[in-house]
Amino acid sequence: MRTFRLIIACPDRVGIVAKVSNFLATYNGWIQQASQHADEQSGWFFMRHEIRAESLPFDLEGFKQAFAPIAKEFSMQWQVTDSAVKKRVVLMASRESHCLADLLHRWHRGEMDCDIPCVIANHDDLRSMVEWHGIPFFHVPVEAENKQPAFDEVERLIEEHDADCVVLARYMQILPPQLCDKYAGRVINIHHSFLPSFVGAKPYHQAALRGVKLIGATCHYVTQDLDAGPIIEQDVVRVSHRNTIDDMVRLGKDVEKMALARGLRYHLQDRVLIHDNKTVIFD
Amino acid sequence: MRTFRLIIACPDRVGIVAKVSNFLATYNGWIQQASQHADEQSGWFFMRHEIRAESLPFDLEGFKQAFAPIAKEFSMQWQVTDSAVKKRVVLMASRESHCLADLLHRWHRGEMDCDIPCVIANHDDLRSMVEWHGIPFFHVPVEAENKQPAFDEVERLIEEHDADCVVLARYMQILPPQLCDKYAGRVINIHHSFLPSFVGAKPYHQAALRGVKLIGATCHYVTQDLDAGPIIEQDVVRVSHRNTIDDMVRLGKDVEKMALARGLRYHLQDRVLIHDNKTVIFD
Amino acid sequence: MRTFRLIIACPDRVGIVAKVSNFLATYNGWIQQASQHADEQSGWFFMRHEIRAESLPFDLEGFKQAFAPIAKEFSMQWQVTDSAVKKRVVLMASRESHCLADLLHRWHRGEMDCDIPCVIANHDDLRSMVEWHGIPFFHVPVEAENKQPAFDEVERLIEEHDADCVVLARYMQILPPQLCDKYAGRVINIHHSFLPSFVGAKPYHQAALRGVKLIGATCHYVTQDLDAGPIIEQDVVRVSHRNTIDDMVRLGKDVEKMALARGLRYHLQDRVLIHDNKTVIFD
Amino acid sequence: MRTFRLIIACPDRVGIVAKVSNFLATYNGWIQQASQHADEQSGWFFMRHEIRAESLPFDLEGFKQAFAPIAKEFSMQWQVTDSAVKKRVVLMASRESHCLADLLHRWHRGEMDCDIPCVIANHDDLRSMVEWHGIPFFHVPVEAENKQPAFDEVERLIEEHDADCVVLARYMQILPPQLCDKYAGRVINIHHSFLPSFVGAKPYHQAALRGVKLIGATCHYVTQDLDAGPIIEQDVVRVSHRNTIDDMVRLGKDVEKMALARGLRYHLQDRVLIHDNKTVIFD
Repeated sequence: MRTFRLIIACPDRVGIVAKVSNFLATYNGWIQQASQHADEQSGWFFMRHEIRAESLPFDLEGFKQAFAPIAKEFSMQWQVTDSAVKKRVVLMASRESHCLADLLHRWHRGEMDCDIPCVIANHDDLRSMVEWHGIPFFHVPVEAENKQPAFDEVERLIEEHDADCVVLARYMQILPPQLCDKYAGRVINIHHSFLPSFVGAKPYHQAALRGVKLIGATCHYVTQDLDAGPIIEQDVVRVSHRNTIDDMVRLGKDVEKMALARGLRYHLQDRVLIHDNKTVIFD
Repeated sequence: MRTFRLIIACPDRVGIVAKVSNFLATYNGWIQQASQHADEQSGWFFMRHEIRAESLPFDLEGFKQAFAPIAKEFSMQWQVTDSAVKKRVVLMASRESHCLADLLHRWHRGEMDCDIPCVIANHDDLRSMVEWHGIPFFHVPVEAENKQPAFDEVERLIEEHDADCVVLARYMQILPPQLCDKYAGRVINIHHSFLPSFVGAKPYHQAALRGVKLIGATCHYVTQDLDAGPIIEQDVVRVSHRNTIDDMVRLGKDVEKMALARGLRYHLQDRVLIHDNKTVIFD
Repeated sequence: MRTFRLIIACPDRVGIVAKVSNFLATYNGWIQQASQHADEQSGWFFMRHEIRAESLPFDLEGFKQAFAPIAKEFSMQWQVTDSAVKKRVVLMASRESHCLADLLHRWHRGEMDCDIPCVIANHDDLRSMVEWHGIPFFHVPVEAENKQPAFDEVERLIEEHDADCVVLARYMQILPPQLCDKYAGRVINIHHSFLPSFVGAKPYHQAALRGVKLIGATCHYVTQDLDAGPIIEQDVVRVSHRNTIDDMVRLGKDVEKMALARGLRYHLQDRVLIHDNKTVIFD
Repeated sequence: MRTFRLIIACPDRVGIVAKVSNFLATYNGWIQQASQHADEQSGWFFMRHEIRAESLPFDLEGFKQAFAPIAKEFSMQWQVTDSAVKKRVVLMASRESHCLADLLHRWHRGEMDCDIPCVIANHDDLRSMVEWHGIPFFHVPVEAENKQPAFDEVERLIEEHDADCVVLARYMQILPPQLCDKYAGRVINIHHSFLPSFVGAKPYHQAALRGVKLIGATCHYVTQDLDAGPIIEQDVVRVSHRNTIDDMVRLGKDVEKMALARGLRYHLQDRVLIHDNKTVIFD
């Protein structure tokens, strides 16, 4: 069913829900899903509606024009999207295949509602897997002593493919600050630890050293601060003294790919609102 | 914060949310929480609002009168409750203490927002624990060959203590059909299996015999059909070949008390809507 | 590290561990892992050793000959395997790709220590995916009114490919009793429910109808009794009123593939001992 | 069933298991449970046996004398305990009741196999609850500007009550280094975060600020380094944007008490071996 998704964040006050639902009722909009959240601490209000598109008398542009005065009145940060317009997701990877294979397979069987215009990787290992899915693969090696040319090429490819969103599916390079800012709220990373534990390199080695009994993974938006952006999803798996670091890496892969897939799915369905380095997830 | 909780279930159509939120906005009602759910299969719509009581110009009776015409227009099943009015919960138990002790402790430390006018048990073992909490304890033995007098006394006690809700905290007797009907939607049971597996007696023995790798517990409303009422909450815990039936009983106790406490909490906060032998939980 | 895996089940009595570890010590066998389990209810004893192969003075045949008298003395059911000899696993599928894709990917990246001589399916849909992995794909359609020719062909293929083990990766046909018996303890199935709940067809529909709050999957050995064989692994995922049957199918897929992969891994590493329609898993 | 529990840690080499099981077989010891673990990284070997006491011809002292030469030969760190001799556990608390109430209830219904000679608290709030269980309660206030007298009294009480083990059941004071050292490996703490995340004060506030999607608790041995001792057990629970800090505190309490109860149970059954600031748990 085709829907319009209306996402709103604004300072809380009386009458927001009434105003918005009145607006929708005025145009006979059929609300398929609706969620609200009032955050007492920040005093902000968040809401998300899915409205059946065919129940409304206008298209997305018409909706935007009709709604703009209300948005202004309540100082809303807002967007409305059309579920029929697939987001364009550029995937980035290195050598590890588990997250990439998982996302490609979900996309291939129709579980991920997006287009994947291309995959960019700093190694060539995964080319065949990607191309089997009929997706262009770009190998952009990153030279340790001079990374900028590579990131320039990455940026060019992202632009050329008109990406709405970039997913770092275990891309083992740190994006330069300029790219983090340019695509703020649109670059999703999977970190292979339960953040904020074990920031940075080799988190499973850190976990083994500390002797933790659960290891985890964190799906988050990328910001300039390493592994410190807004968290979308996390999960864990139990480990024991019997598990070597290799076991942890293997067990962790399953957690990584699941957390990433769930996080990306939320993003694709416009279920994530970012506020104050945290996320509201209307699942 | 004192709130009014408005719970609505009705056939789905355009304009329900607008009508209700308009009503609230008309009276300057401050929506603290709101949740909606449209069930496509049944064609029903469910919603729950928490409105700050002090933002409204009327008390609960006034609210009911003002809202009644809207409810009628949309053929709503509905109720509105005042968070300041604690529900009266009668607990029933047998010999096993874990669920009862857990609920009493949560109540004692202020985590369960209810009054507990009394505990009824068919054994006298738990009297001292209950009385330490300052709660009256009634021992109503059930004779195997003639149970009706006991259930008459149970009914009398429930009525006398003006119970809004009855919790079977491992009460090991089956309530007679007449009581199930009389208190439909108001008697909560905890069954020590992951329903619909292992209905009836000795579920852990059944689980051990089948060799399952997870055992569970199910919190549900009681109906005339044994262990077949609407499910509120379930949970599981991992077991292995190393676990004897005694271990399962022990591990299961923790799952039982957690599932029961969560289920009761949902009920006390008017977060559970029953429809068609299933539940909508606005958590 | 190459190991010999010694698996033993026998009636319990004093001296079993001493006898076996003495035997190993006599030949300077370096025990890498060892697990024991005494089942009080059945009076049986189970044990598993991994011994470094290079620490022993004989090959697998030599080991068997040297150990046979001990096995006889204690009436042991036993086997010893060489970790360097990969098991040959025939995968069977229908149209659903998630379990097959997951196993193939794990195998492809070296996580599943086995050979996959071929995939057999009753539909042709997954041919390309399988062949990309360099694995032969056999399409053996099953005619509803006369299934025996298909199963004869399946049996022929299993034999021809010298399979140690057959995995039904969402193969939507029921194997005939004769095959169940012939490959007892060697055919692994994934059932898309938390058994013993929802045996048979369309378990997610059954789960939706019952209104459960968790759905699950069960990896088990196939026997003549449908979905009633020894359980190897189970897992669950939380669902709510918001989830349609389609959601449950999607969420369940992740549980299915994880439970199947873990169960198969246990089997491949000779960690599963079957006794009395239950399993001992030395994980 | 009364058992002797033999716990061993030593540098790994061939013949350890044979030597120990031979020793046991020589004396007709009936092994009820046995677990081994060879840690490849450290080169150490760990093992735990439960032997039926009535199958052995000597008492604990006799066992120790007979086993000592073997222990010496293999440079073992070892101990043997009698399951019939209950450990004496001193509980320490402040104002929060959930962990204390949980442990007391488990002890009361016979689930925790230990004696509790007394409870020590720096506030008097929980006296009545403790005394209802028939356990002496000592109120030892800690003065912010001079804590030593209080800790002297705590030490005196621990000694006077002949404690084998001290449990900090949300005792909100940091033990002085001297006590940490004196009772190394015998003081168990529950920290209300998923360590190493959120060390120190107000971890739920830290978690809320970071916007994590799971919160946790960690049961660990106390060392001089705050919240950095060997981890025994951890667990987590899912949270969302809907959860306030108060909710996190409430949800976290259940995780805390469960993790602490499991951790303490492992300790009481001599299932925990500490090595290199990590634990081997033979569960």
